[in-house]
Amino acid sequence: MSDDFKTILETFPNPFPDRHYEVETICPEFTAVCPKTGQPDFATIVIQYTPDKVNFELKSLKMYLQAFRNQGVFHEAVTNRILEDLVAVTQPRWMKITGQFSARGGIRTNVYVEYVQPGYVHKRDNQ
Amino acid sequence: MSDDFKTILETFPNPFPDRHYEVETICPEFTAVCPKTGQPDFATIVIQYTPDKVNFELKSLKMYLQAFRNQGVFHEAVTNRILEDLVAVTQPRWMKITGQFSARGGIRTNVYVEYVQPGYVHKRDNQ
Amino acid sequence: MSDDFKTILETFPNPFPDRHYEVETICPEFTAVCPKTGQPDFATIVIQYTPDKVNFELKSLKMYLQAFRNQGVFHEAVTNRILEDLVAVTQPRWMKITGQFSARGGIRTNVYVEYVQPGYVHKRDNQ
Amino acid sequence: MSDDFKTILETFPNPFPDRHYEVETICPEFTAVCPKTGQPDFATIVIQYTPDKVNFELKSLKMYLQAFRNQGVFHEAVTNRILEDLVAVTQPRWMKITGQFSARGGIRTNVYVEYVQPGYVHKRDNQ
Amino acid sequence: MSDDFKTILETFPNPFPDRHYEVETICPEFTAVCPKTGQPDFATIVIQYTPDKVNFELKSLKMYLQAFRNQGVFHEAVTNRILEDLVAVTQPRWMKITGQFSARGGIRTNVYVEYVQPGYVHKRDNQ
Amino acid sequence: MSDDFKTILETFPNPFPDRHYEVETICPEFTAVCPKTGQPDFATIVIQYTPDKVNFELKSLKMYLQAFRNQGVFHEAVTNRILEDLVAVTQPRWMKITGQFSARGGIRTNVYVEYVQPGYVHKRDNQ
Amino acid sequence: MSDDFKTILETFPNPFPDRHYEVETICPEFTAVCPKTGQPDFATIVIQYTPDKVNFELKSLKMYLQAFRNQGVFHEAVTNRILEDLVAVTQPRWMKITGQFSARGGIRTNVYVEYVQPGYVHKRDNQ
Amino acid sequence: MSDDFKTILETFPNPFPDRHYEVETICPEFTAVCPKTGQPDFATIVIQYTPDKVNFELKSLKMYLQAFRNQGVFHEAVTNRILEDLVAVTQPRWMKITGQFSARGGIRTNVYVEYVQPGYVHKRDNQ
Amino acid sequence: MSDDFKTILETFPNPFPDRHYEVETICPEFTAVCPKTGQPDFATIVIQYTPDKVNFELKSLKMYLQAFRNQGVFHEAVTNRILEDLVAVTQPRWMKITGQFSARGGIRTNVYVEYVQPGYVHKRDNQ
Amino acid sequence: MSDDFKTILETFPNPFPDRHYEVETICPEFTAVCPKTGQPDFATIVIQYTPDKVNFELKSLKMYLQAFRNQGVFHEAVTNRILEDLVAVTQPRWMKITGQFSARGGIRTNVYVEYVQPGYVHKRDNQ
Repeated sequence: MSDDFKTILETFPNPFPDRHYEVETICPEFTAVCPKTGQPDFATIVIQYTPDKVNFELKSLKMYLQAFRNQGVFHEAVTNRILEDLVAVTQPRWMKITGQFSARGGIRTNVYVEYVQPGYVHKRDNQ
Repeated sequence: MSDDFKTILETFPNPFPDRHYEVETICPEFTAVCPKTGQPDFATIVIQYTPDKVNFELKSLKMYLQAFRNQGVFHEAVTNRILEDLVAVTQPRWMKITGQFSARGGIRTNVYVEYVQPGYVHKRDNQ
Repeated sequence: MSDDFKTILETFPNPFPDRHYEVETICPEFTAVCPKTGQPDFATIVIQYTPDKVNFELKSLKMYLQAFRNQGVFHEAVTNRILEDLVAVTQPRWMKITGQFSARGGIRTNVYVEYVQPGYVHKRDNQ
Repeated sequence: MSDDFKTILETFPNPFPDRHYEVETICPEFTAVCPKTGQPDFATIVIQYTPDKVNFELKSLKMYLQAFRNQGVFHEAVTNRILEDLVAVTQPRWMKITGQFSARGGIRTNVYVEYVQPGYVHKRDNQ
Repeated sequence: MSDDFKTILETFPNPFPDRHYEVETICPEFTAVCPKTGQPDFATIVIQYTPDKVNFELKSLKMYLQAFRNQGVFHEAVTNRILEDLVAVTQPRWMKITGQFSARGGIRTNVYVEYVQPGYVHKRDNQ
Repeated sequence: MSDDFKTILETFPNPFPDRHYEVETICPEFTAVCPKTGQPDFATIVIQYTPDKVNFELKSLKMYLQAFRNQGVFHEAVTNRILEDLVAVTQPRWMKITGQFSARGGIRTNVYVEYVQPGYVHKRDNQ
Repeated sequence: MSDDFKTILETFPNPFPDRHYEVETICPEFTAVCPKTGQPDFATIVIQYTPDKVNFELKSLKMYLQAFRNQGVFHEAVTNRILEDLVAVTQPRWMKITGQFSARGGIRTNVYVEYVQPGYVHKRDNQ
Repeated sequence: MSDDFKTILETFPNPFPDRHYEVETICPEFTAVCPKTGQPDFATIVIQYTPDKVNFELKSLKMYLQAFRNQGVFHEAVTNRILEDLVAVTQPRWMKITGQFSARGGIRTNVYVEYVQPGYVHKRDNQ
Repeated sequence: MSDDFKTILETFPNPFPDRHYEVETICPEFTAVCPKTGQPDFATIVIQYTPDKVNFELKSLKMYLQAFRNQGVFHEAVTNRILEDLVAVTQPRWMKITGQFSARGGIRTNVYVEYVQPGYVHKRDNQ
Repeated sequence: MSDDFKTILETFPNPFPDRHYEVETICPEFTAVCPKTGQPDFATIVIQYTPDKVNFELKSLKMYLQAFRNQGVFHEAVTNRILEDLVAVTQPRWMKITGQFSARGGIRTNVYVEYVQPGYVHKRDNQ
């Protein structure tokens, strides 16, 4: 997983940087390949974040997620890497990635990972 | 997005300004255009607010939302702008806008943004 | 779509060739690529058939369907081709393929195609 | 409604013209304008057909349906016109259009219209 | 019920008179008055028809149905009268009216009535 | 059960006697008394009919059904008697009574009974 | 299962013997004992019939079914015996017994058995 | 799959051999092993039959189905073999086996197989 | 409503008076008569209580509730009176009556009333 | 109800006595007899507890509950007695019994009773 897919991600200036708000993006068509068996994996990736100076652009996000299509990655690794890449590119106030993977061998796995900007106090407001 | 659609919005005096209450308006037929591809976007816009001195008038809200029909706007920008415009016109005690956008490229996005009048302590009461 | 994926398919002798019975196989994790845009497509493929001399083996079916992963194919073409290939390899008494494709550009498509062995009168018995 | 939108529609050769099969396309994001009031209308358009020599291409279908966005059209007229245009361009063996329109003034309308090629006996096979 | 409300109904020329198609209009906000007690009645009126030379216009239908608001009418009479009026004005090939009335005195009533143009063979096609 | 409750039933001239139509009346608040134990019974009575020269009036139907309140009647007898009485008074083209009785001693009973006018061919049209 | 429980069943003259109608009785609290293990079995017994000269009385039916409480009986035997006994006592035009037995050892069983009076043509009318 | 598990099955004389009736047995806890991978498979096995001279005994059926626990068997083979064994032991008038297998590799399979005694005309009566 | 129905109520000694527990009794077949119109009313009465020295007996409760069958009583009055009577007879630690009345004139009413024994601290434990 | 059924109950040492956990056992096939009428009663008994030194064994619990099959017991008495017996035998940290009894005379009853070991602070953890 040495490729640097995060260069695919594009951003645009947060149109309302003075305001605290939350964006939730749901991607049910993620697919990658199991690094041990070469078999395809399927997942829904949910991205929730409060942007700071920039937002990610949706079409580039789609291209970024498609870059994993033929990559061999473990569930935990890919969920964390998506967080790493999106944090690196957008420097958000807060971000959470949820990876919901399809059953393999009768076993289903979810991975949850979260980032908070140093000094930022996060309070969920979409509930 | 230079047009000033908020002049379309009309208000009427809050009939019970001494009382704290909440109004929730659900608009499932919002449509605008993607600023990158020119393709139409569809969304449900939910407006929740506690009025102070004035309330927005519903027919003018419909006309206001229809004004975006052929405008190119990002999801985050349009959700925030609706908040901006409605806050400017109605000066509410509290207001929250939720934009639930249809899937594009297999990816679905929600945007949540909230305003609280300085000095006002908001407590949700519709739950 | 010149590749001959059907060589991937393996069969085993119908364990009960004298008996009329029906097999229904549901594959919700099919993915291919749009031949016009290069974008990934997702589908559920349902295979229903009455075997004659041989049955297809499930693991080889999985490999066969995975072979389309990076192929550019139209919805109608791939649904028909799966029927062609499975008929060529298993020579069934009856077979039906249903392709249920995910939304693209806000538009969702299903394709239905059926084969009956000459002289065979098909009567569904799983209802 | 004098414009000839059907020139937008593109086709590709039916990949399996010798076979009888059925395609079902569901378009929940149709919008046009009421010819009497100028207010926007919203609908789900369902297209079902058995292709003969050509199939319509999905991206061009999307563009075709988007062409109605700012057109003033009655419910019955637009549903019939979509049938007319798609029949003219694809000359199918059988085609059915269903238009499901959102409520206006508390009244909700559906329109159903069907075409059968002269001499063709249609038998639904997606049930 | 001596008033002639049917003059309220407007029509427009059937845009596709050579084609057999079906229109279904659902009106959940009908209200009239019980002729015995003066109490309000509420109903959903469903209109299904195959137009011949003209179609009824939806806004005039809304006005027509609203004209019953302060009329005293029996359930059976009003359902049949709506059929009479719509048949008189539109001369359809086929029409069916369903009146679903809310409970009164713990008793709930539905009325079903149908018209077929002499010589016309009706075949439902919205199923 | 010697009382003649059917004198309570009032009718009004069928407002559209030349037309075939169907009326369905649902009465969930029927109660009578068990003739063996004196305990109250509860039922939903459903009346479906095609009127001929007269219709029953709903308020008188309510009074008629209430007359059973303190009568001792078997489930089968009361369901048949309601049919007898309504047929005697309205002489319909077709009528069906369904009695759905609440559980007694852990046992629940439904009774179904139907009448067709001699020479009349009944075809259900509310389906 | 030598006991003759059917003497418990009481009947009353069919109050409307000239009419064809159907009675459906649902008994969810049936219990007996497994003849092999002595363990209790639980079932719902559904009785559907068209009476001829007599009907069974519900309280005696309850007592009859309770008589099986401590009897050892196979599922098939008890369902058939209930039919035998009720046919012997009521001589119906048509009768059907359904026995729905609770899971035992992870296995659930239903038994369906039907009787038609010689020369009688049965037509279900409760559908 | 050379073992002869059918010797495990016990029968008892059909308590009502002169009557046509139907028994339905649902076994949601079947498990066997994939003959290619050695991985466990899970299924619900549904057995429907009209007994002739003997019925299978439920406890022995449970033991019989448990005998497959560590056997390697294809879905089609095991469903057909259960039919073979139960037909051999009970010689029924009619029998149908449905095997509903859990997903493996993202693919789910159902198998349907039916037997009719020569000369017997089967008519389903549990519907 | 001068009759003293509470003499119908029977009690039995609380079998476990040293223990705090809760009894909940649900009576969906309550019926009385409207004191203004003489029309029947229907309700579900729910009784929840923590017994002290005695419990009410269920069969006598049924007779007590049936005594209201032909009484003219307002919704609020009857709900409160049931509490009065049951408190007088059973002297419970805590009791709550809920009256859920069927719709009349399109309006549905619930009445809630509660009693706590002086000095007793009630804590609900059935949640 | 003088019999001492609790001798039927067997226990085994709590395998993790140092840990606080909760066991919930649902028994939908409980049946006993009404002490006033001799009629059978049916109930679901729910047992929830936090074991201390021993747990009850499930097969013996089944035999214990079956011992009530022909016993005459009031709803409140049997629910409390099951608590008494299970507390005596297992000395749990906390236990709650819920008895949900089937309708009798149109009236349905639930009984809730709870035990807490002296000095133990119970906090539900299955919610």
